[in-house]
Amino acid sequence: MGEKLGRQSFCFANPPAIVTVANIVGPMEGQGPLGSQFDWVMDDLLFGEQTWERAESKMLRESAKLALRKINWQPQEVDYFLAGDLLNQITSANFAARGLEVPFLGLFGACSTLAESIIVGSMLIDGGFAGRVLLACSSHHNTAERQFRFPLEQGVQRPPFAQWTVTGSGAAALAAKSAGPVITMGTVGKVVDLGISDPNNMGAAMAPAAADTLISHFQDTGTDPSSYDLILTGDLGAVGSAALKDLMEKQGFQLGGKYNDCGLLIYDLKKQDVHAGGSGCGCSAAVFTASVFKQVQEGKYRKVLLAATGALMSPTSSQQGETIPCIAHAVVVESAALG
Amino acid sequence: MGEKLGRQSFCFANPPAIVTVANIVGPMEGQGPLGSQFDWVMDDLLFGEQTWERAESKMLRESAKLALRKINWQPQEVDYFLAGDLLNQITSANFAARGLEVPFLGLFGACSTLAESIIVGSMLIDGGFAGRVLLACSSHHNTAERQFRFPLEQGVQRPPFAQWTVTGSGAAALAAKSAGPVITMGTVGKVVDLGISDPNNMGAAMAPAAADTLISHFQDTGTDPSSYDLILTGDLGAVGSAALKDLMEKQGFQLGGKYNDCGLLIYDLKKQDVHAGGSGCGCSAAVFTASVFKQVQEGKYRKVLLAATGALMSPTSSQQGETIPCIAHAVVVESAALG
Repeated sequence: MGEKLGRQSFCFANPPAIVTVANIVGPMEGQGPLGSQFDWVMDDLLFGEQTWERAESKMLRESAKLALRKINWQPQEVDYFLAGDLLNQITSANFAARGLEVPFLGLFGACSTLAESIIVGSMLIDGGFAGRVLLACSSHHNTAERQFRFPLEQGVQRPPFAQWTVTGSGAAALAAKSAGPVITMGTVGKVVDLGISDPNNMGAAMAPAAADTLISHFQDTGTDPSSYDLILTGDLGAVGSAALKDLMEKQGFQLGGKYNDCGLLIYDLKKQDVHAGGSGCGCSAAVFTASVFKQVQEGKYRKVLLAATGALMSPTSSQQGETIPCIAHAVVVESAALG
Repeated sequence: MGEKLGRQSFCFANPPAIVTVANIVGPMEGQGPLGSQFDWVMDDLLFGEQTWERAESKMLRESAKLALRKINWQPQEVDYFLAGDLLNQITSANFAARGLEVPFLGLFGACSTLAESIIVGSMLIDGGFAGRVLLACSSHHNTAERQFRFPLEQGVQRPPFAQWTVTGSGAAALAAKSAGPVITMGTVGKVVDLGISDPNNMGAAMAPAAADTLISHFQDTGTDPSSYDLILTGDLGAVGSAALKDLMEKQGFQLGGKYNDCGLLIYDLKKQDVHAGGSGCGCSAAVFTASVFKQVQEGKYRKVLLAATGALMSPTSSQQGETIPCIAHAVVVESAALG
């Protein structure tokens, strides 16, 4: 059984464990600072498929299947598959689910989908509805770019504050009463929109949503930045991360040296041509599953607050002059020794 | 606390109640057989907005707010808002959530979103994570048609088996230990794809998913068609409903006179030019909230099995030659006297 904490947060009677994780990334992510830590680096962006969209769905599916293989779970032993991605009608997730034969719940939180799926999956487990949950999310630079912005062939120049959509997928297997880092708390975000309408400037658009969720989390749970070994946002990039630190400081919260952003970790911003850093569902999914999870497992981090951020616009809403509604969902992952 | 039943189904220790519902529909739905039962019939498809997309988001938001007003709940008393729709990146839901200031979880199940949101909402309540959940979903004929098929101005002729996307939204307020019809069981669908690739023929594409979920439901829960006063699918329309009855009969299940489909109920198929009937998230949402819910409330139906169906393709996946993955999620709604 769960328990509500304050307005937006919750904790678990029996914190579900993250039993294992898996990930697949593109060549560029493989050349980044975390390159050696990914399970599978694709040779090219097509991954043996005819289209980038099929490649993305295959990434999502194969990372989910790889997670199952690592712990020798059969799909028929999984109670629910939770997944989402950035594509219209979350087709990467839908087509991946087609091959799995597991009861499926589709989620859309844009780039916050990893945290959203961890939240819902943990709730289903602690609520008694599932023993085992598999979750996955993905993004692909080329599918996102041509869907949200311009045809790649057009070679449009990107502004310096633009971020680079990560080609990557991450999956995690959650279970009740199992070994592994545990999910102890979480905070579900509200939609926040401070009026930014440039879909190239998502870091700045998402920073207020991240601040809103982090502050709610600290207030609801009686924690503060010093309670965590690492506070990690999903894909604010260089511009959004700086904005978040400012916003938090104005509200009396010093994130300090404990703070980092997956969009800054996945690429070498000095050497790789990614402008303000990484973005996309695959950004937090790949960084969390390849690097952060292992460090929690090894006890290097005992308590991590992951706040994945999502920009909830569509190309149509942007063309119609709408500003960008944003959200951030947060989860606390602790090493098992504390669980 | 929940309990799993078989492979795909579940029941609740304390069945959550549907405290109230609300809905808004377009002019054509207002002229249909259920016209007098809707809360709000729009004068035109723009609903006072500049674009159909804004009109759809307003429908979703206003039906959610209307549900709250009916029972005098304030948004700040609602623990979670769950919503989804058919538009790319579920913008109708995202923009509606922006105005509500309630912790938000975005869902995507295409036209199965009503059932998906009832399932997740009920699980959050019975799992102890929420006392009160607000859910809503929508579709709009003109936004869907131009997103999924052709510009309306083009006047493309529709094949006789095509369905008409309902302009409608439905919302429901769920709560623990409250008066009202209760949600007692549910079945989460698997993605089923039997190889239909024509996005005009969604009823036929979705029928196998509906059959799969209904059969799983009967097997998992030890029920059969005779256990229910009404078995209702979401939007199979004339073609899909006939296909479903055939498929079920071949598996030994006679749906008989207890079976109906929201896509057949919302329009007068003889008088209104809708070809094979209604479709869209708004189809089951409007029919369930305007008609079925009230009949459960009044005790006319004591036990209803609602299986909402969703076609999970995108225009891109169809153009790339993919077949249509489909899903159906089912919930059992019982009159309070039995709860």
